[in-house]
Amino acid sequence: MKLATIELGGRPLPALFLDDGRICDLQAFAQAAPPATLPFPWPETGRLTMIDLAAGGAATWAWCRDIAAVADAHLVSPGSYRLLAPIPRPPKNIFCLGRNYREHIQEDNASRNLDTQEPEHPQFFTKPWTAIVPHEGAIRYDQRVTRRLDYEVELAVVIGQGGRDIAEADAPGHVFGYTILNDISARDLQKRHDQWFKGKAIDGSCPFGPWIVSPEAVGDPHALRIALKVNGEQRQDASTGAMIFSIPRTIASLSSGLTLEPGDVIATGTPSGVGYAMNPRQWLKDGDVIECEIEKIGKLVNRVEEVR
Amino acid sequence: MKLATIELGGRPLPALFLDDGRICDLQAFAQAAPPATLPFPWPETGRLTMIDLAAGGAATWAWCRDIAAVADAHLVSPGSYRLLAPIPRPPKNIFCLGRNYREHIQEDNASRNLDTQEPEHPQFFTKPWTAIVPHEGAIRYDQRVTRRLDYEVELAVVIGQGGRDIAEADAPGHVFGYTILNDISARDLQKRHDQWFKGKAIDGSCPFGPWIVSPEAVGDPHALRIALKVNGEQRQDASTGAMIFSIPRTIASLSSGLTLEPGDVIATGTPSGVGYAMNPRQWLKDGDVIECEIEKIGKLVNRVEEVR
Repeated sequence: MKLATIELGGRPLPALFLDDGRICDLQAFAQAAPPATLPFPWPETGRLTMIDLAAGGAATWAWCRDIAAVADAHLVSPGSYRLLAPIPRPPKNIFCLGRNYREHIQEDNASRNLDTQEPEHPQFFTKPWTAIVPHEGAIRYDQRVTRRLDYEVELAVVIGQGGRDIAEADAPGHVFGYTILNDISARDLQKRHDQWFKGKAIDGSCPFGPWIVSPEAVGDPHALRIALKVNGEQRQDASTGAMIFSIPRTIASLSSGLTLEPGDVIATGTPSGVGYAMNPRQWLKDGDVIECEIEKIGKLVNRVEEVR
Repeated sequence: MKLATIELGGRPLPALFLDDGRICDLQAFAQAAPPATLPFPWPETGRLTMIDLAAGGAATWAWCRDIAAVADAHLVSPGSYRLLAPIPRPPKNIFCLGRNYREHIQEDNASRNLDTQEPEHPQFFTKPWTAIVPHEGAIRYDQRVTRRLDYEVELAVVIGQGGRDIAEADAPGHVFGYTILNDISARDLQKRHDQWFKGKAIDGSCPFGPWIVSPEAVGDPHALRIALKVNGEQRQDASTGAMIFSIPRTIASLSSGLTLEPGDVIATGTPSGVGYAMNPRQWLKDGDVIECEIEKIGKLVNRVEEVR
């Protein structure tokens, strides 16, 4: 059971993907239900979004299980839709964590002749919604902007119930679900502009999806294989257990003094194996196919498309 | 003539503040006009926002001048409203520029015994919408989150017509107007988390307003006095002419590969005089009143309120 945002008839629509292949139109289900029975407030616009679903937290997943039992009512025909990013427009820029895997810090040190230590506190930066592309969307590559395009597979957390000053122990209750994010990075811009934002924020640099999986289906988020291939060649392959800052610690640190909202997204950093740390350094080029895979979630596949 | 967002009857409403004190309800003016005569598309939600107005660019200001001539039609009574931030929720996190005034870099070096050079490229970071507070809104101060709260007065640019890869020469045509932003910074968090984001993003750390002034009314944006007082004591006092990266250069650099949208906001950095560079260092405390003033725009006044 997965939650995705699809485009159907030119409009984004949240959909429930069942394991048997059926796809349910959640707008139709929500409209047919008495509003008081919904686990989230009916949106003022009349159009349900994944952010509304996220606001329902665990109750949304329970509602989805009930729908699964009667799913034949509002089915989406296969082939009639295309996948969008699970949250095409999160409430804020996507939060990202840098340097959150030990071996990635080691490869960074080795590749740049540095001896930086593991961070004692999470390092946050952001990616704007305009960078987001869905599963199978194009990673834009413009040589007039960058010549050092690189990949980073990351486990992404979607916030359900929002909050500020969330305690580490309470953090799991604020997770709506998990998805995959490829933190495409323009290494030349990242270096040139000092702060990482500019090199992480260009259009097409945030493949994200294909869907959201529930905490129940994922189990321990720190025991998942996380891997990435470029044109079939394995580049990254690790366990999310190797994160320096766990997901609860990250949520506690980020929400200290800062209000998180339903639908906010946090990318939790990348393991080793990025292109800039290879010898010789490898950069993405026109036509490269990048497959990001995280156990129990799925595969996020995107192709680099050079613009001329 | 200024554009503000006000709260009236519990709803945000864009309003035109005329120099003679009259305030016009722009939602009412727009609804009364034939849609084809509006300089921006009528919003699908039926509720006009400052982002819609920004999308109209210079044509919106021309429409406002026409309204000024017949303003008695849809007036807002003084005292019936409160000011919100001019764009309570910009399309992306607010873009901010660090280290954009030479004397601020010098005071930073002096205070930390460093010898960093002027940046050769703009240094960008972001502040989320949840940090925004309006003119006269409270700057939240929670000692459990930070004990090193500081101020930074900045000239903020509001984008009108959006775009990507905007040439420096074309940049002025993409500016909808100007306002004031106080880039409140938690210096302890800024240092502790390495990337600046976390120390710049806490709730209440983005006083912003009170209104937007047109490019025509501002004239040369690089010839404005920019100043800040804490409890009446002058702390910052400079000219926007001392910026290292001009506004056109900043827009060109930021939009390289990155799509800017109507209503996006760019804060252009702070001059010298911040609290952490004083000797002894000065931090904001409960009850402090901060007045940010920029010539031809106005005054943004906020009070620090400690939460216990």
